[in-house]
Amino acid sequence: MDARQLLASRRVAVLASVRPDGRAHAVPIVFALDGEHLYTAVDSKPKSTVRLARLENIASQPEVSVLAQHYEENWEKLWWVRADGTARILEPSDRREAALGLLAAKYPQYREHPPRGDVIAVRINNLTAWEWAEPTR
Amino acid sequence: MDARQLLASRRVAVLASVRPDGRAHAVPIVFALDGEHLYTAVDSKPKSTVRLARLENIASQPEVSVLAQHYEENWEKLWWVRADGTARILEPSDRREAALGLLAAKYPQYREHPPRGDVIAVRINNLTAWEWAEPTR
Repeated sequence: MDARQLLASRRVAVLASVRPDGRAHAVPIVFALDGEHLYTAVDSKPKSTVRLARLENIASQPEVSVLAQHYEENWEKLWWVRADGTARILEPSDRREAALGLLAAKYPQYREHPPRGDVIAVRINNLTAWEWAEPTR
Repeated sequence: MDARQLLASRRVAVLASVRPDGRAHAVPIVFALDGEHLYTAVDSKPKSTVRLARLENIASQPEVSVLAQHYEENWEKLWWVRADGTARILEPSDRREAALGLLAAKYPQYREHPPRGDVIAVRINNLTAWEWAEPTR
């Protein structure tokens, strides 16, 4: 599988962004891929300020990094994929419904309970794949 | 389990840092906890420049975010823990060997092949735990 297929095969990833004060921030996401874009939605639960930090972060620094990985105790089988890209919040007129449709197609959980918050689109500028290679010793 | 125990129970996490140019960066890590510190090591494989980006990042912005999560398809059982803290590279005189001992105690893989690169210590300033709570609908 190439990097894009590896990324698409994962059910969960981590969205790394930068807070307005310049510190790193990380939060898990579920996501769907479509061409050069990765989509993820906010559930927008009341009083869930922690989950909204990512939106503030993107507003001040749209360059984000999304990491998906495979872990097992046999480290020779480790791999990860990182998608670096530019994030924006989708307006209703800007593929928001299409993105929600992709998410619902991937996650049955969303078909029962659609996310009610913002949808983030990350335009992927760089896709990096890594797999374990035994170090020379 | 409290947040610290949840974090300690994970075998892998993601280290989010900030690149010198201000963009977010994310990489998987294995790690060990000890009191207020989280330790992770670099394998230092030759020509592995990607894996060294985290060291450059820490040098320019030591505030990092480490995220560990549990994912399953039953989203009511999702949880994650985030450790925000200040990273530094350990000198040989500064608990480097102790940190490597903790990593080897947690990971048999390191007992056979000790990491040969730098050891990063993250002093945890804030520990955030999240678990799924059914949104009000």
